Parts: sequence; C-alpha cells; structure tokens
Amino acid sequence: AQIALERDYEGQREVETRMRVLMETTADAVVFVSIGTGLVADLNARAAQLLGGTIRDFTGRPIGGELQRDETPVEMRDLIEAGAEDEGPVYAARRTRRPLSVHATAFRASGERMALLRITRPGGQPEQDS
Amino acid sequence: AQIALERDYEGQREVETRMRVLMETTADAVVFVSIGTGLVADLNARAAQLLGGTIRDFTGRPIGGELQRDETPVEMRDLIEAGAEDEGPVYAARRTRRPLSVHATAFRASGERMALLRITRPGGQPEQDS
Repeated sequence: AQIALERDYEGQREVETRMRVLMETTADAVVFVSIGTGLVADLNARAAQLLGGTIRDFTGRPIGGELQRDETPVEMRDLIEAGAEDEGPVYAARRTRRPLSVHATAFRASGERMALLRITRPGGQPEQDS
Repeated sequence: AQIALERDYEGQREVETRMRVLMETTADAVVFVSIGTGLVADLNARAAQLLGGTIRDFTGRPIGGELQRDETPVEMRDLIEAGAEDEGPVYAARRTRRPLSVHATAFRASGERMALLRITRPGGQPEQDS
C-alpha cells in the first residue's frame, strides 16, 4: 500500500507539473475559477499580466473584484454566460483600467463547478509577447 | 488519515479534470512525451488530428514513428532540440504525409524527463478550426 500511495503522490505531482508547463508555455491567458465561491483556483502569468498583477496577487482571491463593467465588479453568473457570445463581453480590468474580453468554459471537477476563463484584449490576438 | 487520502485523491482528479479542459479548449495542438521512452503520455484532439488519427491512436505509443524527416522516423533528440529554432523544424506526419512544425519544451516531472511538443502547420497559424 505504501508503494501505491507513493505512486499516487508521484502521479499527482507529475500531472501538476505538466499542468504548470502547459499553462506557462501557451499563448492563452487562462484563469480557473470556482463558480461557487468566485475565488481564483489557478491562473497563468499571462493572465495575471493582463489583470495587472502577478500570479500571487490573484490566487485564492475573488475574480469579481478584478473585472468591472460600468465600474461595478462583475458577477460570476455574467462570467459564465460569457462563453455563449462569440467575441466575449468586454470588461475593464480594475487595476489597469484597460478593456478585456472574457470567454468562459464551465465544467465540473470533483463535484465542484468551475470555470476556465480565457482573457484577451478585445479585437486583438491573444498576447504573443511577454 | 482516510480523509486526507480521499482529499488527495479528489485533488488529483480535480487537477486531471482541469488539465483535460485546458487541453481541449486551447487552440494549440499539444503532445506530452517521455524523453526516456519516446512514448506519448498525453495529447489533445487537435494534435491527434494534425497527426492523422485520434487521441487513442497515439496515447502510450512511440511519437517517433508518427513524425518523419526524409522518410525516416524522427529521434527524440531531434525533437528536443527543436525547441531552440524559431520556426521549429519541419517534419512530415507519417499518416497524412503533410508537413508539420514542432516546438519542444523539455522539463522534469517526478524525476522523469518529459517534453511538451507544440505542433503547427508550417508557415500558418495554429489551427483555429476543428
């Protein structure tokens, strides 16, 4: 059993490492959010940059306060429905005051409803430079 | 301890689910390969499509046989060095005979050397249509 547990632990660490490498080498700016709590579960450096801070600034914090519409913090419900629109609705990043488009993909992980948010500058390509 | 183990298990499943969602919603065609064995650890549908098959066709199989250069199967060493070049070297997909560019990012996960391969059609954007 000890060996099996260690294997599970190694397996989890391996998936987490792969996840990290994938997130930090993609051109996409991505944020994982818990729909129930509105808290950021994970994000990559590119997303943090578009939101105007670092990964540490946003991890475990509410996403709503970082995205505004008409100077009002966005609600999770609005973000989830964002997936339906083609270009994605445009918000303003609270910290940079620059416009951002958000596309959401909702899914369920371990019984928890989550959303993967892809953030882009509206009308433009995903950021290709860092 | 039982609760902690269940939490670990749930945690692993959650990371795996997030990984799956990220891989299947990105525009990138990505393949994770073990450098030591040359076997495909994971890939997304877009990568499988560019290689001319399905995810199941390639998972756990050698990547070398699927990419050719001058009608010779590519070696892992060539794939890893592919990360250095700007456009990435051009191979032919064995199944489709169409040219593919490959960019590699090498990393270490749980003591195993792995590579993340990003596959594109040379000269073009990453596939935006499915």
